[in-house]
Amino acid sequence: MDFDLKESIAVLERTPSVIRALLEGLPEEWTRRNEGPERWSPFDVVGHLIDGEETDWMPRARIILGRGDDRRFEPYDRFRHLRLNEGKALGELLDRFEELRARNLRELRGLKLTRDQLERTGEHPEFGTVTLEQLLAAWVVHDLGHLAQVARVMAKQYRDAAGPWEAYMSVLHR
Amino acid sequence: MDFDLKESIAVLERTPSVIRALLEGLPEEWTRRNEGPERWSPFDVVGHLIDGEETDWMPRARIILGRGDDRRFEPYDRFRHLRLNEGKALGELLDRFEELRARNLRELRGLKLTRDQLERTGEHPEFGTVTLEQLLAAWVVHDLGHLAQVARVMAKQYRDAAGPWEAYMSVLHR
Repeated sequence: MDFDLKESIAVLERTPSVIRALLEGLPEEWTRRNEGPERWSPFDVVGHLIDGEETDWMPRARIILGRGDDRRFEPYDRFRHLRLNEGKALGELLDRFEELRARNLRELRGLKLTRDQLERTGEHPEFGTVTLEQLLAAWVVHDLGHLAQVARVMAKQYRDAAGPWEAYMSVLHR
Repeated sequence: MDFDLKESIAVLERTPSVIRALLEGLPEEWTRRNEGPERWSPFDVVGHLIDGEETDWMPRARIILGRGDDRRFEPYDRFRHLRLNEGKALGELLDRFEELRARNLRELRGLKLTRDQLERTGEHPEFGTVTLEQLLAAWVVHDLGHLAQVARVMAKQYRDAAGPWEAYMSVLHR
């Protein structure tokens, strides 16, 4: 499937409501448990998505579209949210993610990006030259990957409870 | 995490709205493409979830709780939906899933299951004796597994578009 800006925004704009529909009001047994040591809970994933809004996707798009010659992205801190969100409630994080995502997509739509602009490039700290189009496609994949992760982490809480079904449910073995 | 009926229903009751938030109104590029030959699109997954409501989870719970001595489950037809839903619109399927799930959970709540009833057993055609509790836990895991699948199948549509990010996004390699 070729990249399409409108179809990308169609996915990006619904992620906050999908995550909210999945997590809001659930007992903490579902939202605060992880799938192993050093792995993230659904709560942690929402914190990570917030970090992405604040420090990753649109900030990097701004660098690509900026006038400066230096198109190097800031390295992304994957663990920032663990410190920032200690003691917070999930509801706060869901609200914050929704608000930041809406603001970022307003900005993205307002840019009215042209084909030429989508082909502009920046320098990723790990994998070098990337286009704006690749960055925006990666943003979509990133959302969907973390949604799949939240569902998987929740599913694993019932690995033992599901008894013999466990062997047949591939989500429990990822 | 031990099985808990109330916490299980808390997940089961939200699945229709999560799937709707994720898929309703999206361009068909997102909802009708699959991740390879013989694999299911998001549309197909919703059809499969409908089959589960009609022929799998609660029908099997009824067999377990029934008075008869024969507690054997009917084999489940994993491909029934492909035939039944040809030509249908995704919106119809989302409505149907929501309606069936709500009806099944009304019935489940109405049973006011006791600890003893959760330990009653049925005979699964492939893996033999299973308890009602395991069946209900498997229903929850099944929902979450298919939610993860829908997100993964969508993500894979942008595998190429994401350029070098592809290598770093594990959802694209499952």
